[in-house]
Amino acid sequence: MKNTFGESVSVTIFGESHGIMIGAVLDGLASGIEVDEDFIASQMDLRKSVGALSTARREADKVRIISGVFNGKTTGTPITFIIENNDTRSKDYGELAYKARPGHADYTAQMKYHGFQDFRGGGHFSGRITAGLVASGAVVIKALRKKGIYIGTHILTCAGVRDRDFNNLTDDINTLNSLDFAVLDENSKSAMTEKIEQAKRNGDSVGGTLETVVTGFPAGIGEPWFDTIEGVLAHILFSVPAVKGVEFGDGFGITEKFGSTANDAYCTENGKVCTKTNHNGGVLGGITNGMPIVFRTAVKPTPSIYKEQETIDLNTMQETTLQIKGRHDPAIVHRARVVIDSVTALVLCDQLALRYGTDWLAE
Amino acid sequence: MKNTFGESVSVTIFGESHGIMIGAVLDGLASGIEVDEDFIASQMDLRKSVGALSTARREADKVRIISGVFNGKTTGTPITFIIENNDTRSKDYGELAYKARPGHADYTAQMKYHGFQDFRGGGHFSGRITAGLVASGAVVIKALRKKGIYIGTHILTCAGVRDRDFNNLTDDINTLNSLDFAVLDENSKSAMTEKIEQAKRNGDSVGGTLETVVTGFPAGIGEPWFDTIEGVLAHILFSVPAVKGVEFGDGFGITEKFGSTANDAYCTENGKVCTKTNHNGGVLGGITNGMPIVFRTAVKPTPSIYKEQETIDLNTMQETTLQIKGRHDPAIVHRARVVIDSVTALVLCDQLALRYGTDWLAE
Amino acid sequence: MKNTFGESVSVTIFGESHGIMIGAVLDGLASGIEVDEDFIASQMDLRKSVGALSTARREADKVRIISGVFNGKTTGTPITFIIENNDTRSKDYGELAYKARPGHADYTAQMKYHGFQDFRGGGHFSGRITAGLVASGAVVIKALRKKGIYIGTHILTCAGVRDRDFNNLTDDINTLNSLDFAVLDENSKSAMTEKIEQAKRNGDSVGGTLETVVTGFPAGIGEPWFDTIEGVLAHILFSVPAVKGVEFGDGFGITEKFGSTANDAYCTENGKVCTKTNHNGGVLGGITNGMPIVFRTAVKPTPSIYKEQETIDLNTMQETTLQIKGRHDPAIVHRARVVIDSVTALVLCDQLALRYGTDWLAE
Amino acid sequence: MKNTFGESVSVTIFGESHGIMIGAVLDGLASGIEVDEDFIASQMDLRKSVGALSTARREADKVRIISGVFNGKTTGTPITFIIENNDTRSKDYGELAYKARPGHADYTAQMKYHGFQDFRGGGHFSGRITAGLVASGAVVIKALRKKGIYIGTHILTCAGVRDRDFNNLTDDINTLNSLDFAVLDENSKSAMTEKIEQAKRNGDSVGGTLETVVTGFPAGIGEPWFDTIEGVLAHILFSVPAVKGVEFGDGFGITEKFGSTANDAYCTENGKVCTKTNHNGGVLGGITNGMPIVFRTAVKPTPSIYKEQETIDLNTMQETTLQIKGRHDPAIVHRARVVIDSVTALVLCDQLALRYGTDWLAE
Repeated sequence: MKNTFGESVSVTIFGESHGIMIGAVLDGLASGIEVDEDFIASQMDLRKSVGALSTARREADKVRIISGVFNGKTTGTPITFIIENNDTRSKDYGELAYKARPGHADYTAQMKYHGFQDFRGGGHFSGRITAGLVASGAVVIKALRKKGIYIGTHILTCAGVRDRDFNNLTDDINTLNSLDFAVLDENSKSAMTEKIEQAKRNGDSVGGTLETVVTGFPAGIGEPWFDTIEGVLAHILFSVPAVKGVEFGDGFGITEKFGSTANDAYCTENGKVCTKTNHNGGVLGGITNGMPIVFRTAVKPTPSIYKEQETIDLNTMQETTLQIKGRHDPAIVHRARVVIDSVTALVLCDQLALRYGTDWLAE
Repeated sequence: MKNTFGESVSVTIFGESHGIMIGAVLDGLASGIEVDEDFIASQMDLRKSVGALSTARREADKVRIISGVFNGKTTGTPITFIIENNDTRSKDYGELAYKARPGHADYTAQMKYHGFQDFRGGGHFSGRITAGLVASGAVVIKALRKKGIYIGTHILTCAGVRDRDFNNLTDDINTLNSLDFAVLDENSKSAMTEKIEQAKRNGDSVGGTLETVVTGFPAGIGEPWFDTIEGVLAHILFSVPAVKGVEFGDGFGITEKFGSTANDAYCTENGKVCTKTNHNGGVLGGITNGMPIVFRTAVKPTPSIYKEQETIDLNTMQETTLQIKGRHDPAIVHRARVVIDSVTALVLCDQLALRYGTDWLAE
Repeated sequence: MKNTFGESVSVTIFGESHGIMIGAVLDGLASGIEVDEDFIASQMDLRKSVGALSTARREADKVRIISGVFNGKTTGTPITFIIENNDTRSKDYGELAYKARPGHADYTAQMKYHGFQDFRGGGHFSGRITAGLVASGAVVIKALRKKGIYIGTHILTCAGVRDRDFNNLTDDINTLNSLDFAVLDENSKSAMTEKIEQAKRNGDSVGGTLETVVTGFPAGIGEPWFDTIEGVLAHILFSVPAVKGVEFGDGFGITEKFGSTANDAYCTENGKVCTKTNHNGGVLGGITNGMPIVFRTAVKPTPSIYKEQETIDLNTMQETTLQIKGRHDPAIVHRARVVIDSVTALVLCDQLALRYGTDWLAE
Repeated sequence: MKNTFGESVSVTIFGESHGIMIGAVLDGLASGIEVDEDFIASQMDLRKSVGALSTARREADKVRIISGVFNGKTTGTPITFIIENNDTRSKDYGELAYKARPGHADYTAQMKYHGFQDFRGGGHFSGRITAGLVASGAVVIKALRKKGIYIGTHILTCAGVRDRDFNNLTDDINTLNSLDFAVLDENSKSAMTEKIEQAKRNGDSVGGTLETVVTGFPAGIGEPWFDTIEGVLAHILFSVPAVKGVEFGDGFGITEKFGSTANDAYCTENGKVCTKTNHNGGVLGGITNGMPIVFRTAVKPTPSIYKEQETIDLNTMQETTLQIKGRHDPAIVHRARVVIDSVTALVLCDQLALRYGTDWLAE
């Protein structure tokens, strides 16, 4: 299916950057789950992000819930979020109607939609569409926490600066979820933002790597083939704009180890089975083993840059050059963080509902 | 769905390592596609792999097609492949009935299936189950070639040795598809096999990285959200046993670039739009741009090693140690290659059928 | 999936009778299809229906398209329809918060949603939710007509009155699509409405049978198993509130025939293969044969009646009696007509897209 | 998806009437469920059916389970059933290679598969393919009974003879499940078989109606839209060859009632909520209400008859006549019974797994 993801718990997203509204339909969630609109708003704020680092576009991003919530709780029927598009200066994008921005989806959209796509501001490809995922994610992140399942993501690397590794997971996740620029070491923030601002001054942009940890997730969830936990997470993670890589546990690094150092030895701790290391990131044979789920995603540099670029004219399919105007972000890795937390929560809820039934999350 | 993947063209796999038969049902393929049983057999041979490097287990791996093929061509109805399990020395695995092998799915299977799983030889988690994917893949690989779409994978790195990069894609793919140890530089083979054999002598194992290229694939295929080409490929790639990471184009490496160096400038060549570089691996906004699709997968070291390991007893959930006996591979990265080609072909066929209709592949 | 239906072309519906908004997301439709908002409005009017026969509730039912349409044409990305709920006199429904209306979903909703459902006006179970299906259907009905595919439904029986059979299909479909009370014989309307009004005067309600015909639909569409044309149509037809039976061709009547009279003999007409009779309703082995697709749906009497009924209190699960107040329809069969046309069009579009590819409908 | 049905519990079927093997893959079933091969065999016998009434074709129909069962219990991974085709007198079908049998799928198969289909004995369209459904169904029917859920189907009408109605459901279901010709009144059998044999003597065939009852099924299962219990059951019921109609509760008969007589009044019995009547067949708003699920299916007369018929030549698409030789059934309604029980059980298991989780059935 195209703009719908998930089996028992699913999300459908819609909208265009400069259309009337964007939003999402979150379906399949158990009835009786508390919906905290303040928390939704605070998650939406994390997506908008910080100061000079990000887009100058100002959206109130006020989420309206138009169905599926009654007396502050989920009804069990589809929850629909809508967000109006207010601040859409379409005039800035005039030239983009026909010039493909390198690194963006303009050309591939043209090949798929034959010129009927809403090109303004990237249309349906805009990172703005992730707002629906963040609103949906906020509901399930809250519900997962009540079940003792916590998700935290930090910017592991950005523009060559590396944050410190996770240490005390509980503390670190707490810290991250209160930050708008999610790094574990305060110094990382200044070093990274400096690099980002420098790129901006050069009319350029930078990328980064996000590292995510999920704690408290039960063992025995996932499938041996196809719907492996890794596979379903990766499937949706590649929808987060600019993601070009996903790895679990030691990921690509594990290929340089020997079996004897890559295998996670089992032990027991307070009567609970665990592993001494977590090179496999909490997943073996596609199924969770009760250890923290750990993965990293690669976020490419924002393709919108001020520097002149070589491209083609989509009407004539002839070569031309392009100088992008308008506002754009010199980095999006820090904004992608909350989107990754959100889609992770959505996938994990779906897996839990498939395994334990539709009502488990609310019990 | 659990052991079924794909929408218009789908594959269902079944079987256990030491059960009666394993196999697959390949459904949704256009009618009238030639089925070349010799090619299927040769692809199956690639999975079995080479000499001293791999498992001592000897399976004829004779694939029988029991439905869906009539007069040498696909009927359009489900094609079922079955493969008998002959050489199953279950006695070697006695101890594994209750001791979890680190790095394997024994413990997670126990948590999911409550002890009812067929534990012998890894049961349904065995790499042997990929045989059904390879048989299915062989049919579609052949069909894609008739449409000018070619897939090639080489071992980019193994045990610290790095193969040369792709050069002339057409020639390189041709070469790779005739090799049982798929490297572009002959010297890589000897260097890698030496490392593998050394690991074996140490009772240990090694991993590696596979790099895949798809040429001739049309632009405009894939979805902007969820069913991105990257997402659907990654989804199934994480089913290939031991895969812990997937990256497209420059992947994690792209995070260290600037936007100005990461963006692929457009140009025209013989009237056809292309890009001067391919840092995005042929996919932008989830949709193909007509450039080669390029991705890499990380394959962890085989978890079965001879060295003694710390683990738990699945009956008592108490700590114990394990010394794995029986035959096992010091590396599987070279065997994973044909599986990756196969699942790639299956996913791409599905995407083409969704886009162009069910009959396109046979036209 | 729960509130989403369809594979290549899908629809997601949301909302509650007395919530803020209801609507639908129509996804997967080809880009470049004209969207005629006047036609959508006129289809919505058919759903509201006529004079004294139907609910006194007055909704403007103004459909807003908030995504997926650009310059009057589909973009190929999700089309979202929203409709505000204005005239919701919730006070009329006070008692229904705890008394289950017989024939309605109040009790089953309680068992599924544990009391968290929005009970007002039937909540998500309300017939009002079909408005999203009608809006979505209007877009595809128009597109199908451009392809020469026409859908027409008449009230075959209502309260014991039987309309005449289809005669000249082209003319009859034309006629039906201009009527708000869809009967082929004008006299049927007066006879049926008289019966409906009489039932209303008795504080009671009546049901009826709808007969649908689809012309111009190509042969060779559908699957031999599971996704038979009959199966996928029936699947969604049973979502139309109050439908309790679906039959194709001669349906239950065919069971009284002999094979020799039930089989449709083949012949050729103007070089085109057809059948002399159409007892099988245009579908054989789950696949269309190019003859008109014919089916009938049974619509039960509206469960909301004024007469006192025996029921239970949902809080205490004890017996009680119920006297429903507020406005309700003495019949809905005439209003169900446009919903059936709409879901039929949605299913057929999906089947065509699966078979011929995503772009065929706009070509 | 094409030959796969179900979400959490799914079945995939494959094979052709005169191919090497037919079979099914049953996936998603909880681990630890007892698999009774004798019961499977006895269910398979019901499909073959009785004496002179049915096809002269003799198949041992020995079901082999080649995966997914270990030590007599389900492993939780795919269960694969294969059945060899032995007695296939393909020579009888020579002429059918090019003449379309009226009432059969020969012509529609040609339009869908372009002549590549295996035409012998109906190929993949053959009723024989239901054997895989019956084998799969046998496993889940047994498992449902352990949960107190019982399914029974009788031949309500055949060739104008009507069986008595259900009376004591528990006793009636018990009786039916021990009969090879499933009627509640012994006299119905002789009257029906007489009519069937008479039709056979005339070179003709007859149809009938099956009525199914499910007891012990919990309330609160199903969805308000799309995946209504009625919709998902009807979806698969129309796959049972020759089914042309499905109705729930009073079905088409309910359209002739008033709301006051069609509504099922609620009451309590031994502290349990129930309804005084069951005109709605146990489903309201798509969701079960705890009353018996009741539905009827219309089975058309076997299309294979000895009488000469008008048809077309599939090679030339010109008119011709056809005299079918070989063995065929003068009725299949009695054989369809066990198929309907089987698919009903498969759908209900899937719904229970979606609702209560994957392990519930084995708990």
